[in-house]
Amino acid sequence: MRPEKLAAKEIKESLKQLPGWRLEEARYSLHRSFVFNDFGEAWRFMESVAEVAEKMDHHPDWFNSYNKVEVQLTTHDRGGITQLDVDLALAMNALAGIKSDIEA
Amino acid sequence: MRPEKLAAKEIKESLKQLPGWRLEEARYSLHRSFVFNDFGEAWRFMESVAEVAEKMDHHPDWFNSYNKVEVQLTTHDRGGITQLDVDLALAMNALAGIKSDIEA
Repeated sequence: MRPEKLAAKEIKESLKQLPGWRLEEARYSLHRSFVFNDFGEAWRFMESVAEVAEKMDHHPDWFNSYNKVEVQLTTHDRGGITQLDVDLALAMNALAGIKSDIEA
Repeated sequence: MRPEKLAAKEIKESLKQLPGWRLEEARYSLHRSFVFNDFGEAWRFMESVAEVAEKMDHHPDWFNSYNKVEVQLTTHDRGGITQLDVDLALAMNALAGIKSDIEA
């Protein structure tokens, strides 16, 4: 069972735990750019994300150019952002070594 | 030593060996979309390409959304398309199981 689309207020609340991420309202998606030292580092990040994405059965839309990874998260079959996107964003921050603000 | 930028005529010639690829003149790059059965298959393709790209020290600009991989190839430090792009495009077609027309 896929989760329901989050309301604007819930998305805003979720973003507090997601440093670096922003809401792109026009596309109903969460966005973030990650910058690494080189392709190898960017790729290892993508590999670790791909593994998590497969386990979640929820996949990012992402663009890679050498050391940069630009990510858009949305739940296509819900036409918006769901908890799956928030969870994947949290996982990506953790895998990139970015601590959540939630503990601050 | 990085190869020189290819001339328009050389690019046109190279495209004969590259089924599915097109020249995007405005961006001085070679483009192609690959479509697979699912994320796993798309990802295994990307993994094999990443390995080749690291060996070549020449990397694609690419976008992945589930089973789709959209690729742009250009040689940034030459401001255009070089033999490296043609070689990487050939390798990508081979890895995706698409035979070159060159033998036809």
